[in-house]
Amino acid sequence: MKNFTFQNTTKIIFGKGSISQLEKEIPLDRKIMLTMGGGSVKQNGVYDQVVSALQKHNCIEFWGIEPNPKVETLRKAIALGKQENIDFILAVGGGSVLDGTKLIASAIPYNGDAWNLVLDETLIGDIIPFADVITLPATGSEMNQGAVISNSASGEKYAFGSAYPQFSILDPETTFSLPPYQIACGIADSFIHVMEQYLIDKNNAPLMDRWAEGILLTLIETAPFIRKNQQDYEQMANFMLSATMALNGFIAMGIRTDWATHMIGHEITALTGLTHGETLAIVEPALLRVMKNEKRNKLLQYAERVWNIVETDEDRKIEAAIAKTEQFYRSLPLKTRLSEHGIGDDVCQEIVERFRKRNTRLGENASITADTVKIILEHCK
Amino acid sequence: MKNFTFQNTTKIIFGKGSISQLEKEIPLDRKIMLTMGGGSVKQNGVYDQVVSALQKHNCIEFWGIEPNPKVETLRKAIALGKQENIDFILAVGGGSVLDGTKLIASAIPYNGDAWNLVLDETLIGDIIPFADVITLPATGSEMNQGAVISNSASGEKYAFGSAYPQFSILDPETTFSLPPYQIACGIADSFIHVMEQYLIDKNNAPLMDRWAEGILLTLIETAPFIRKNQQDYEQMANFMLSATMALNGFIAMGIRTDWATHMIGHEITALTGLTHGETLAIVEPALLRVMKNEKRNKLLQYAERVWNIVETDEDRKIEAAIAKTEQFYRSLPLKTRLSEHGIGDDVCQEIVERFRKRNTRLGENASITADTVKIILEHCK
Repeated sequence: MKNFTFQNTTKIIFGKGSISQLEKEIPLDRKIMLTMGGGSVKQNGVYDQVVSALQKHNCIEFWGIEPNPKVETLRKAIALGKQENIDFILAVGGGSVLDGTKLIASAIPYNGDAWNLVLDETLIGDIIPFADVITLPATGSEMNQGAVISNSASGEKYAFGSAYPQFSILDPETTFSLPPYQIACGIADSFIHVMEQYLIDKNNAPLMDRWAEGILLTLIETAPFIRKNQQDYEQMANFMLSATMALNGFIAMGIRTDWATHMIGHEITALTGLTHGETLAIVEPALLRVMKNEKRNKLLQYAERVWNIVETDEDRKIEAAIAKTEQFYRSLPLKTRLSEHGIGDDVCQEIVERFRKRNTRLGENASITADTVKIILEHCK
Repeated sequence: MKNFTFQNTTKIIFGKGSISQLEKEIPLDRKIMLTMGGGSVKQNGVYDQVVSALQKHNCIEFWGIEPNPKVETLRKAIALGKQENIDFILAVGGGSVLDGTKLIASAIPYNGDAWNLVLDETLIGDIIPFADVITLPATGSEMNQGAVISNSASGEKYAFGSAYPQFSILDPETTFSLPPYQIACGIADSFIHVMEQYLIDKNNAPLMDRWAEGILLTLIETAPFIRKNQQDYEQMANFMLSATMALNGFIAMGIRTDWATHMIGHEITALTGLTHGETLAIVEPALLRVMKNEKRNKLLQYAERVWNIVETDEDRKIEAAIAKTEQFYRSLPLKTRLSEHGIGDDVCQEIVERFRKRNTRLGENASITADTVKIILEHCK
């Protein structure tokens, strides 16, 4: 086990009816900016619950943070926040709204352009306190410091680190009306967050392995029930809790991580607009096939403990586990091949070119070069 | 899943050499009281590392916090802390030193007698910030708000809730010189902390089940290696992390818990002085045998997932799992029967009498009366 420091200060308020707790969680003397997406929170009643809980508070609203939040949109929210001297931000929506809010909260006290903060976290100084009512289990943003921001002008998409939400309200009932495709992407996203931290050889952290496997098994067991009945409170609660635990540091103590699947997936989204979760479901089985020797021991453990595969030939065992994984993504249902989305060689070549220019080396051992990415993308076709 | 609120603010600093980080974790303007036990931290070099890291800080020392810390001892530390106007406390030692420190930190700003705070947590107001260098994996006190304090005058022992440590330093190397008996008790204590939160019927929280099972399996796998070689860094790190995760709320989200084993064990310690972990190893198998119908479904899951018991007869399966559990405690090695410690009927009668007077109802369904405790203690003989 590696030496590590762990601290996660976010307060999780979980369960049906919990939005009403906003009233006492935010001090009355704060000037609040509510940040929101395209309006689904108005249709599903979440907005009404928030406004009702905050009726004694002083709030302004910013609407229009899109999926894969763009710095161009966020600059408008930052300008509004500066102008109105807001001192608390409440994100109401999914991971994109919250990710965008993390940049807004970091950029309001900053004098330069917000994109600088994405490119160089060390420029981040004070951060406006923020919290969220999260309505889409997927990114884990509700209990971590990370955010992913896109720049449409440059076609770039990068992760950056900001602060933990002060609190996050998770009411599984808010997910009942989500489009099934978003739920499918959310399950894949959560699953692959775990895989990026778990499928690493020689991590020597058996408890972290067990906890990662625990999330994977819970998602595998929960997914078919959710597909049958998206209003099943207990199953949506399982999914929502799993999504949060998948990327809050709880399974990452003392370990090395990977994130190559995410790096490649981000490029696909940046170039084609494909939803994050779906890009991961395409890239990850391909990456595991290409990197199977580096990840051999952990893939064998994964085959046994997660998929219960009994098979003596190691290569067959590993391929069976990867096939099961791909089959799981297809059952959500998601497509797992670029060709199914009409994405062709031009996109793949551009991605490889980008990694070549940046001289990037990805993966647990920094062994994935642009040439390896090319091979992985071949397997994605 | 029940509605829940979760927040755990403690910063964990984990790994070899991490005591040196004290220097930057505590602001230089603080007046620190170091709280310690009987002197083992002087023998194992931990005290020297602490003093070296804090050489620029202003520290006073309080020695002599005993196992099962007594309010009589803690009153002296509280008086010293008040007199010296200390504004930070650093506990250096095991769970008892830290538990005692939680009462000291709560009682310095309080005008009445410290025992009042144990009896009535609502009297706790300001709490002096405190942190710890924990040297015995067992109680989980390093990442929770709880503490257990004894009163020798009245022969009582109660749990009370205070605040989270600001930070906890966990260096597995500090455990290399622990007496093997303390390690055995620590493993049992950690294991049974998990059991008190896991072995509950109808909890409907599959991820929490998986995480609890993950800690149990890690402890079962780690224990024999520790017994062979207590200087095995990786194994002691597994144990230390498991002990912390066993009682920090991470496996308790949205669930009901039990704690009847602890309540009965505390009485045995209060009356006989037997170490906490060993009392649990005696009471728990007996309690599971007596309560097996209430806990039937979870005991069957426990038998399958933790002990891999394949057996169609439910009662035989449950008894096999309980027997494996008792056998595990004996392998640590600990005794699992009162008679092996020369504890007889007089103690059992006194315990039953105490529960009868208090009209206590213990367990997940508050169904364990004084009469049930009597039957459980019969099974402990």
